[in-house]
Amino acid sequence: MSAYSAPLRDMRFVMTELAGLAEVEQLPGCEEVSDDLVDAILDEAAKFAGSVLAPLNWTGDQAGAKWQDGQVTTAPGWKEAYRQFSEAGWPAIACDPDFGGQGLPKLLSTAVMEMWKSANMAFSLCPMLTTGAIEALMLRGSDEQKAIYLPKMVSGEWTGTMNLTEPQAGSDLAAVRTKAEPQGDGTYRIFGQKIFITYGEHDLTDNIVHLVLARLPDAPEGVKGISLFVVPKFMVNEDGSLGERNDVHCVSIEHKLGIHASPTCVLAFGDNGGAIGTLIGEPNRGLEYMFIMMNEARFAVGMEGLALSERAYQHALQYAKDRVQGTDAGVRGGPKVSIIHHADVRRMLMSMKSQTEAMRALAYVVGAATDKAHHHPDASERERAQAFVDLMIPVVKGWSTENSIEVTSTGVQVHGGMGFIEETGAAQHFRDARITTIYEGTTAIQANDLLGRKIYRDKGATVSAVLAQMKAVAGDARATGDAPFVAIANSLEQGVKAVEEAVAYILATYGEDIKAASVGSVPFLKLLGIVSGGWQMARAALVSRARLAEGGGDESFYEAKIVTARFYADHVLSAASGLAYAVVNGAAGALDLNEEQF
Amino acid sequence: MSAYSAPLRDMRFVMTELAGLAEVEQLPGCEEVSDDLVDAILDEAAKFAGSVLAPLNWTGDQAGAKWQDGQVTTAPGWKEAYRQFSEAGWPAIACDPDFGGQGLPKLLSTAVMEMWKSANMAFSLCPMLTTGAIEALMLRGSDEQKAIYLPKMVSGEWTGTMNLTEPQAGSDLAAVRTKAEPQGDGTYRIFGQKIFITYGEHDLTDNIVHLVLARLPDAPEGVKGISLFVVPKFMVNEDGSLGERNDVHCVSIEHKLGIHASPTCVLAFGDNGGAIGTLIGEPNRGLEYMFIMMNEARFAVGMEGLALSERAYQHALQYAKDRVQGTDAGVRGGPKVSIIHHADVRRMLMSMKSQTEAMRALAYVVGAATDKAHHHPDASERERAQAFVDLMIPVVKGWSTENSIEVTSTGVQVHGGMGFIEETGAAQHFRDARITTIYEGTTAIQANDLLGRKIYRDKGATVSAVLAQMKAVAGDARATGDAPFVAIANSLEQGVKAVEEAVAYILATYGEDIKAASVGSVPFLKLLGIVSGGWQMARAALVSRARLAEGGGDESFYEAKIVTARFYADHVLSAASGLAYAVVNGAAGALDLNEEQF
Repeated sequence: MSAYSAPLRDMRFVMTELAGLAEVEQLPGCEEVSDDLVDAILDEAAKFAGSVLAPLNWTGDQAGAKWQDGQVTTAPGWKEAYRQFSEAGWPAIACDPDFGGQGLPKLLSTAVMEMWKSANMAFSLCPMLTTGAIEALMLRGSDEQKAIYLPKMVSGEWTGTMNLTEPQAGSDLAAVRTKAEPQGDGTYRIFGQKIFITYGEHDLTDNIVHLVLARLPDAPEGVKGISLFVVPKFMVNEDGSLGERNDVHCVSIEHKLGIHASPTCVLAFGDNGGAIGTLIGEPNRGLEYMFIMMNEARFAVGMEGLALSERAYQHALQYAKDRVQGTDAGVRGGPKVSIIHHADVRRMLMSMKSQTEAMRALAYVVGAATDKAHHHPDASERERAQAFVDLMIPVVKGWSTENSIEVTSTGVQVHGGMGFIEETGAAQHFRDARITTIYEGTTAIQANDLLGRKIYRDKGATVSAVLAQMKAVAGDARATGDAPFVAIANSLEQGVKAVEEAVAYILATYGEDIKAASVGSVPFLKLLGIVSGGWQMARAALVSRARLAEGGGDESFYEAKIVTARFYADHVLSAASGLAYAVVNGAAGALDLNEEQF
Repeated sequence: MSAYSAPLRDMRFVMTELAGLAEVEQLPGCEEVSDDLVDAILDEAAKFAGSVLAPLNWTGDQAGAKWQDGQVTTAPGWKEAYRQFSEAGWPAIACDPDFGGQGLPKLLSTAVMEMWKSANMAFSLCPMLTTGAIEALMLRGSDEQKAIYLPKMVSGEWTGTMNLTEPQAGSDLAAVRTKAEPQGDGTYRIFGQKIFITYGEHDLTDNIVHLVLARLPDAPEGVKGISLFVVPKFMVNEDGSLGERNDVHCVSIEHKLGIHASPTCVLAFGDNGGAIGTLIGEPNRGLEYMFIMMNEARFAVGMEGLALSERAYQHALQYAKDRVQGTDAGVRGGPKVSIIHHADVRRMLMSMKSQTEAMRALAYVVGAATDKAHHHPDASERERAQAFVDLMIPVVKGWSTENSIEVTSTGVQVHGGMGFIEETGAAQHFRDARITTIYEGTTAIQANDLLGRKIYRDKGATVSAVLAQMKAVAGDARATGDAPFVAIANSLEQGVKAVEEAVAYILATYGEDIKAASVGSVPFLKLLGIVSGGWQMARAALVSRARLAEGGGDESFYEAKIVTARFYADHVLSAASGLAYAVVNGAAGALDLNEEQF
């Protein structure tokens, strides 16, 4: 069990100094967003996250969601928290004002999302999935579908789900078998079983809106024969009231390593004559529509990596300040000290802190770029921002989530033996984090996307432009002549060089020998993440140096930022060359065994 | 749930070709050990591990140990398995023949221990702790104590425990407060509470022999005032029969992240007048005695890292061969393939396989060196072997266990979404592994020992001698001119250089600024582990090359070993330089923040 206090100081620093909040506030469509509004929303969200959601995190984990006779009961306190969450208008902040949303910029909703996920990841999955379903309906739903579903989903009165996976169709959605039979009246009857459906059934709302991938009778095989349907738990009458119970039922929920309070459902469609649904958009384009939302969903899961790391850090830090054990190094018989005095505990805390801040910086910068990509008046600016977002989405998802396993594990380690005891709560973060590298596309899926669609397709143009920015930052750091900045410049320059070597290998290899290139895909994703994080930390250090020179106060924060950036450069960024080596040299060792030789 | 099949081929290869089984068989005291005996024992142990212990691993995890009214009930099947384990004579294999043991060499008992731990780590902890208690009594017990306790502990009729930790005394044993009051009749009454006592109470045997750290009334403060006592659960009559229940009781067991079937007990001594015990050895030397056994215990926990990695690898490999998902890379519309065909799954499996084999090689080599250190006729050989063992114990412990978190996590990842579902069983290995970097001294404690007592104390002499051997191996690899061997030589040479740089920094810094040196202690431990593993894999590759040249069969195994060594060099050993960089440059970033700046 641990308290959560939103890291507002760092959030505001990143939003303002690194992600360009002022610029975002100037974008067309964001004119009503002001610093005051941003501050007010952050403060309110922090309050809600800390006082309502965070206290339910551990109790929800222990109680879990319960299944009986097709009904799912959420953990104690969940219903009331959800009611408050909806009444406060939180589901709507990023949604279209035409349907009751507040249309706030991505940069701001990103910071708010971080808080929900830090406070209570299992809870946050319900609004996250609903947001995905809202996006799909918004983008490709008919006016009728929008009118029926969107207002109640935006208000939080109903929730949404995404039904993709089937037992034989996990990473490989081409294998989806769920069928949709047209009824001739514009509706379809859906038959099939979906697994791993987050909040597929629950007691938080009266209705649940399922988006379901299924095949029409005449559909081509593979990914080009999958359509997207909307299938409500209860049919909706013309007046908006609820009608008959639809033929979709939760047959079981999973017994999982973590996120116990988030029900992961097996849903049976059509066991009693067919679940009635309507087609979204055009036939056979369901996967394409899913891909439109994919960036959003992958970004959100990347935020889980950041958010769990922040929570684990706060938890470990508190313990390290409280727990007294041993004397200061080299002081025999001296007074007992709290363990934060011990060098390795500091190293662990700094490793958690610096990686968390690096993940936050990169994610928010990508969030702001998303706003630019949507709203910037200049088309070429929009295009440039979108290319950057596309490059970085798999990095934010893959790198942040992989990091979170390490960071939450370090959080357990700081607690020593107490970390292994469930009541301490540190283990929960570690268990919860373990799903994040798997769902919404495993790290390998992210890395494939990065290599094929983001590096190889434009022949490295986007990544090269980013590397040029990194070099400029390294140059600025070196030019200061200050020791910490020279250390930062050294590591960042090595890191950029490592990415360049790896990119050159990928460009030379991918077309000829995709397997040889793919062996290096996950190491490359981690490499680009580490170096991108180092880039943002270097920017943060430079800004902090300037603020210190101005003498406007808050020295402690800015000094800490410089030290933290230096730690990151020395301890994290220094892994870059080794990763590049594995990318460039690692194919033969990985591919040369026969299956029998394993 | 997964099957376990002992990796006998690799175990025999490592014992014979890398650890020098033939030499061990020639040592005084080991004359009765023959290749035939070794083969027979390995085969029997493999059978027992695979058929009796392994099937209980997952069911034991799910059922857990249960506490009620001071009694602990082990998981279903545990009692019967323990009975068979004892009847087969397994507790005795490494024990002194004078007390019913078989006195087999450490190298052999190491391989057998690996099997117990792979098959069922939670079960294996009971005999492991008993072995520790036997060692202590053997080394420092009185003849009377030995006569009372040892035969029944060696036979498995009674088990043993180690009672060190108290709520305020974890890593810092100087803070132990449990008291021992002399009764004037050679016995003592013990008062205090001990926590984290593995198998401190259970239903497997009639009696439990607790070894307990406590303070005599006149004891000096700190570590030099701690004595060691033996405190049986039931007093033992002169005829060996059980007498009165002693005043030591299990007041609760912990709710843990993993090893659910291993009861972790809170033991209350003396709540009803005092638990009666006798002093082991001399007063105030308890911690010193513990340290004698520490090498043994730390080595054993290091083996857990290896063993869980092996189990997780077998589990993931089976899934990767069975699970069909997607088509071969670059083949659109081709037949669906098992996921072992995908490049990143291969990379993950090779990373698990290569690290597991490297850990095994290093551990067995250290096991054989332990035999030499005990039995070699030449004193200078014994001394050299002991110095090597002392250097490598913290590495085997710290590196193997840290690796096991990564390897078992990769095992979960190979399973995709199924890895997060508890029924799959992959998550259990990951949960179980998480304790190994904590108990018997956290990784930081191992790393402190490595820096202070193993590197700085002899001014790097022992590590330099080992590095010289590594360089010779790298030279042999390079001299072959074969591409995989040149790749291995490149990485190994870089690795040796990295260790040398780090050692130079440590020697220059440790005496002057122990905190600055200590920031690098864990990265250094990992570095030395990675490079030592690479050294052993290079040796394995060279032996395999020679065997292939001889043409005596088993080509597939030897070819796989060379490929695996190469993978390790490219993907694992390549991290060495980055770690050395953190050791040499990482102090300022880690130490410069005030406590308030975190």
